[in-house]
Amino acid sequence: MRNLKLTLAYDGTDFAGWQTQPGKRTVQETLEQAVAELTGAERVRANASGRTDAGVHAVGQVVNFYSKTQLACDVLVRAVNAHLPHDVSVWAAADVPQVFDANHDAVRKLYRYVIHDGEVPSPFLRRYCCQSRHKLDVALMARAAKCLNGRHDFHSFETDWPNRMSSVRTVTHLAVNRFGGYIWIDVEADGFLYNMVRAIAGTLINVGRGYWPEEKVQEILSAEDRAQAGPTAPAQGLFLMRVTF
Amino acid sequence: MRNLKLTLAYDGTDFAGWQTQPGKRTVQETLEQAVAELTGAERVRANASGRTDAGVHAVGQVVNFYSKTQLACDVLVRAVNAHLPHDVSVWAAADVPQVFDANHDAVRKLYRYVIHDGEVPSPFLRRYCCQSRHKLDVALMARAAKCLNGRHDFHSFETDWPNRMSSVRTVTHLAVNRFGGYIWIDVEADGFLYNMVRAIAGTLINVGRGYWPEEKVQEILSAEDRAQAGPTAPAQGLFLMRVTF
Repeated sequence: MRNLKLTLAYDGTDFAGWQTQPGKRTVQETLEQAVAELTGAERVRANASGRTDAGVHAVGQVVNFYSKTQLACDVLVRAVNAHLPHDVSVWAAADVPQVFDANHDAVRKLYRYVIHDGEVPSPFLRRYCCQSRHKLDVALMARAAKCLNGRHDFHSFETDWPNRMSSVRTVTHLAVNRFGGYIWIDVEADGFLYNMVRAIAGTLINVGRGYWPEEKVQEILSAEDRAQAGPTAPAQGLFLMRVTF
Repeated sequence: MRNLKLTLAYDGTDFAGWQTQPGKRTVQETLEQAVAELTGAERVRANASGRTDAGVHAVGQVVNFYSKTQLACDVLVRAVNAHLPHDVSVWAAADVPQVFDANHDAVRKLYRYVIHDGEVPSPFLRRYCCQSRHKLDVALMARAAKCLNGRHDFHSFETDWPNRMSSVRTVTHLAVNRFGGYIWIDVEADGFLYNMVRAIAGTLINVGRGYWPEEKVQEILSAEDRAQAGPTAPAQGLFLMRVTF
């Protein structure tokens, strides 16, 4: 059996997230189905670097699965894409060692959260950002976000999830940038808690619109209490950009 | 009555084109409905610079309509957008002289046709380009397109349409560019025949993929025969970019 690693992109709008759920359209089910059609009913089990929630997009999700297919990797990419719907694409395929596990071996992931604060939402990008009714001060958001860099207990930025061992994570990169009416918040970390990036985004939006002072982010972090942080920003602004192994 | 000019953008994917048709979702109907809801059941008739076909997008469509509304233009923009679905947005509103007619007074329109020739289609841009299975030579396409500049009978690039007086038009600008896997063909002219940009795109794609020599475009133009030109490229790659008055 080969162990194959795929890098894929998807528009999360019409998916109930990554993980297979009965009666729902999920990316995992869609990908496994495409591979099955291609290899002649071989059932594979795609193991992703992490589950993405309903409505969340991916530019560089990574999965691995075991398969008996004899296809060369470049042929496999074209063949899988031919069996996938238009809202999922495979960018690359590679043979990896038998022990490679896209979930356990991911050492860092980069997420991007995109916000639009222009007056008029673009009909073309409406699926790929959240709309803010307030103008945001990006310099202020960037300063406020600095305290999140490094190793902390991020319990204030986590939606409760059963049996989570620890909410200590290390943020290795955090940046807030603007281009025109679009603001993006990049967060790279060794791991993410449930809804962590969306809670960070909701918090920084509150700072950027002038509702909270920039010192508030440090207070929230120290409180280790989800109730202190801003709301969970909508899924449609979130992209899984890159996974590092 | 005020004569109001609106500039609007729309994602054409889920519309049966601009013009109102019974039982179909059209941009005209959607816009007129939004204005009616806003102004309290005032029926307006939106007059566009030109009809766009089913699936064709607009970044800068211009319309005018007569209305009794007292709203200031900036308030009107926000208010109309609040009544529009997510796939149409109004960028700007302005009071114009009573005689202004968005259709008759348009002296030039700029259309853009977008093609993707990368191996893997992007799930995020799939609605906004046509996918080419062949790599395209953009320099060759640009050279081949040169002969279309200026005043010509474009009958070879027109889908038959009853009662068309003349198929002579003046192309004032024609450019072919590439960024990464995306190619765009810009055509600006004093007027367009039915499916003209899509027939030009289909023809230039045949040149760019090496199926036709570059001199073929001049032959097609001179033939004044639609059967000579390339196929009508799909609607989803076409954008109405700008209207000049």
